[in-house]
Amino acid sequence: METALSFYAPIQGELKQVEDGLKSVVHTGMGSTDALISHVVDVQGKRVRSAITLLTAKMLGCNDEGPVLMGTAVELLHLATLLHDDTIDNADVRRGRATLSSLEGAEIAVLVGDFLFAASAVKVCDTQNIRVIRRFSETIMDLSSGQLTERFMVNEWQQTMDQYMERIYKKTGSLFATASDAGAVLSGADETTIKQMRSFGKNLGIAFQVVDDILDFEGTAAEIGKPVGNDLASGTLTLPALLLVERYPKNNPVVALCQGIEREENIKRAVDMMHNTGVIDDAYKVAEELRVKANASLDGMPDSDAKQALLELSDFVLARHV
Amino acid sequence: METALSFYAPIQGELKQVEDGLKSVVHTGMGSTDALISHVVDVQGKRVRSAITLLTAKMLGCNDEGPVLMGTAVELLHLATLLHDDTIDNADVRRGRATLSSLEGAEIAVLVGDFLFAASAVKVCDTQNIRVIRRFSETIMDLSSGQLTERFMVNEWQQTMDQYMERIYKKTGSLFATASDAGAVLSGADETTIKQMRSFGKNLGIAFQVVDDILDFEGTAAEIGKPVGNDLASGTLTLPALLLVERYPKNNPVVALCQGIEREENIKRAVDMMHNTGVIDDAYKVAEELRVKANASLDGMPDSDAKQALLELSDFVLARHV
Repeated sequence: METALSFYAPIQGELKQVEDGLKSVVHTGMGSTDALISHVVDVQGKRVRSAITLLTAKMLGCNDEGPVLMGTAVELLHLATLLHDDTIDNADVRRGRATLSSLEGAEIAVLVGDFLFAASAVKVCDTQNIRVIRRFSETIMDLSSGQLTERFMVNEWQQTMDQYMERIYKKTGSLFATASDAGAVLSGADETTIKQMRSFGKNLGIAFQVVDDILDFEGTAAEIGKPVGNDLASGTLTLPALLLVERYPKNNPVVALCQGIEREENIKRAVDMMHNTGVIDDAYKVAEELRVKANASLDGMPDSDAKQALLELSDFVLARHV
Repeated sequence: METALSFYAPIQGELKQVEDGLKSVVHTGMGSTDALISHVVDVQGKRVRSAITLLTAKMLGCNDEGPVLMGTAVELLHLATLLHDDTIDNADVRRGRATLSSLEGAEIAVLVGDFLFAASAVKVCDTQNIRVIRRFSETIMDLSSGQLTERFMVNEWQQTMDQYMERIYKKTGSLFATASDAGAVLSGADETTIKQMRSFGKNLGIAFQVVDDILDFEGTAAEIGKPVGNDLASGTLTLPALLLVERYPKNNPVVALCQGIEREENIKRAVDMMHNTGVIDDAYKVAEELRVKANASLDGMPDSDAKQALLELSDFVLARHV
């Protein structure tokens, strides 16, 4: 874990417990299976999602075990979705490591993903809170339907901005929203506070995905670990591409490549245009607005190190420029 | 649904509610996704697993909504596992219909499977019973680890009978056990009754899988919908193959084909030997013993149409000869 990030400070102990919880999943008693699960769970992520649960609970004065259990469940679920995504996308590398599907085949990777989905659901049951458990399962539905919709929308250059926002909410924002929502529910917060914290997670999660989508058009292939314009090449239209379509209805490279015309050349043209016309800057502005909206949800929350850390985490999400 | 089967009689109304519950999952508000889910959910299965939950609850005098919700969750989970299994196995046909993976590709099929896993988990939350919800998630872990173990054991002709039994318990028996266990828990039964009903489901589920494994060596390709000896051809060793290895240590066709020697010829030799040496009959005896053990768990249960129906269901599981 990159403990250098300042927003970890108020929850160092709890994050350690989350890491221990992740490792405990590896002991199934089946040697070969344990090795496969280790390969997935051992990857050191930033644990942003569990940090949101833990900081929310800390800010609201909760000292129970619940938020640690939820934080662990949230990270397990995130790992399960990454595994299925990489399998579906035939990705070879994730966070600098060979993917399980590239090493063991798609069959094994799908089953280990199923196992991790189930392990996350068992972990959330340990909270003994039905509201949180139910929200968690609904989130898995959102995550998979968000991914499905992304696939159905391939090359659909006439999709609306609302459709894009709804899709990335499901694909990414829903788990952020559940992370903060559960932090509040498990702290015994009132409904207004829960709603505000849900709004915080939702807007921050959408901002996170918008930045992710922008990063696909920035830097070099070496920096981002995949070819620049990778989403566009696979027909997935994200905010910069949709802004380009909206603003330049005539002779548009995105529309052309969606129609199968000179794909490689048009990807290059589209990426150049995004940078030259200020579309990338404007996409960052959209993310920034979402971040401001997220932070506004914290306005009435009790002042504390944890609240300050949530604001820093929110900065961090936006600062992921290459 | 094949309502001709006699064990449905005491639970006609509840089974109808389960069918309605399955259909309700299709309404996600995303047209394309709904069509895909329909393709999977509309297949008319025998609903044996939900019948176990419903009959157990009926026998124990429960009239609440819980068992119907659980029955629906159990069938959704079963459909999700079938979908992932077919995707992993590259199967083209299931119950006479083209599989989703053959029509839409593995990517879509994996995601729709994830969606159905989640939908089943949401449905079980409606029971509001944490014990049942937790057991359900643990069962998903069992199902996926059972499938994983099957893959690790490919061509392992030295595996023990205990390993085989443990594996098919996880792969199949665990969901049967959870179906009957939950029926008892949701009826407010005492711990002894719950334990007995769990034992009923567990043994019946293992018997079900043993029969399934035997059927792979019976009939013609047309009758069973796949080539005879299909499991053996893919290196999956089931009860008849393991009995053959145990009894004929010398010049054994199963051992030979696991070592990659004249595979096609040795599959044919193995299948012939199974039938000529009484191995198939003995495998049926193992299933029959499991059924007797399952039925014994019902001994102290209150006499009723529902109890009678559970015994008929148990007969049905064994009578699935081609």
